[in-house]
Amino acid sequence: MHIDVLTLFPEMLSGVFNSSILKKAYEKDKFSYNLINFRDYSQDKHYKVDDYPYGGGAGMVLTPQPVFDAVEAVVKERPTKPRIVLMCPQGEPYNQKKAEELAKEEHLVFICGHYEGYDERIREQLVTDEISIGDYVLTGGELGAMVVIDSVVRLLPDVLGNKESAPEDSFSTGLLEHPHYTRPANFRGMKVPDILLSGDHAKIEAWRRKESLKRTYERRRELIDKHSLSDEDTKIWNEFNNK
Amino acid sequence: MHIDVLTLFPEMLSGVFNSSILKKAYEKDKFSYNLINFRDYSQDKHYKVDDYPYGGGAGMVLTPQPVFDAVEAVVKERPTKPRIVLMCPQGEPYNQKKAEELAKEEHLVFICGHYEGYDERIREQLVTDEISIGDYVLTGGELGAMVVIDSVVRLLPDVLGNKESAPEDSFSTGLLEHPHYTRPANFRGMKVPDILLSGDHAKIEAWRRKESLKRTYERRRELIDKHSLSDEDTKIWNEFNNK
Repeated sequence: MHIDVLTLFPEMLSGVFNSSILKKAYEKDKFSYNLINFRDYSQDKHYKVDDYPYGGGAGMVLTPQPVFDAVEAVVKERPTKPRIVLMCPQGEPYNQKKAEELAKEEHLVFICGHYEGYDERIREQLVTDEISIGDYVLTGGELGAMVVIDSVVRLLPDVLGNKESAPEDSFSTGLLEHPHYTRPANFRGMKVPDILLSGDHAKIEAWRRKESLKRTYERRRELIDKHSLSDEDTKIWNEFNNK
Repeated sequence: MHIDVLTLFPEMLSGVFNSSILKKAYEKDKFSYNLINFRDYSQDKHYKVDDYPYGGGAGMVLTPQPVFDAVEAVVKERPTKPRIVLMCPQGEPYNQKKAEELAKEEHLVFICGHYEGYDERIREQLVTDEISIGDYVLTGGELGAMVVIDSVVRLLPDVLGNKESAPEDSFSTGLLEHPHYTRPANFRGMKVPDILLSGDHAKIEAWRRKESLKRTYERRRELIDKHSLSDEDTKIWNEFNNK
């Protein structure tokens, strides 16, 4: 997989690409990337990339020219048709299913605005996907692009070792995770539940499943896919309901 | 406001703190921050911060000792009671309302796990808030913490100039934004809608409101708070419904 990120703040992203999983995956040749300052593509003599909105109003709007030219330059360099992703609050809400879908691609291009709105022609004629990582206002698309890239790259084959894989990733299973405990068994008087020290693996599994259902019931009832519950799960779920 | 971030990867965050709005806000003394590697607080002779989960299973779990000690050290340095935020997939889904709530605080402490789960005693006895930025799996809490910090700091007084404020931030109004256009009026044959060039401000406002309602209707119908719609808005909304 190759990833191009179009941004006015490449230095914002380099710390993330140079750490942890992204760094390891890059060094192991699991993906490659380029950070592209699309200001370099501006045909304006002052390298301007934004202008006032037609029709008036506060704020600035990214002009189409530098974005179209930068995207076309990176598209030309690869043989495969890329997904061209616009990070924006109006986009499709991002989730794990979308991460899995993007992880199958050969080439991803991210367009990150900053402060400004996007000229609508970018949205209509250039991009294949508009993504929002959540219902909150961020200063630019960079953090969103990094979130998407981290979640996608960790799904590529052989990127995660056993050590890095979360015990059971939430959202892959549709249930929130059960509680975890590690040493010491007694920390300042706070003790690990006896059952986890019992060595009885069947009981431990049952306890974890119940705690996982309980946490999902208490916090994110809307996540549950009832059809995926076993008979035993359904019995537990209904007990919560009847309390 | 002062922000402490507890992380095993401080270099992941520094690029974000040194760019754009966070950089400007810091230089203008609108907030201060520290990046703290909580490995420095480990009492283990090898500076270990994680261990195998009790009860077995894959993955590692952060031990309580370094996290409790690091949090207590930063809490002691400030006169006010902080919000102690755990970034985790099981947390409360983050949104703009929560950003506005956190922006009123004097001191925020973020705990970022990485790869691992958290020992449940951290969750139960130390933190005041558990936050998830969305329903997708990330490698660590760092990107989530940066998302929260960016969205909070930009709400602090005098941080955003007029230039930086988005034309109309989505989620503050409950409606997705209308389309924006800027120069040139004709880009490769793609034209700006005539109405935006008309100079008729009342008509432009009406067009924008309708486009905003339309985009919300088409993409995120669940966001709308029908009670906030004017009679004219409601008429337009019902027209979409009857199509």
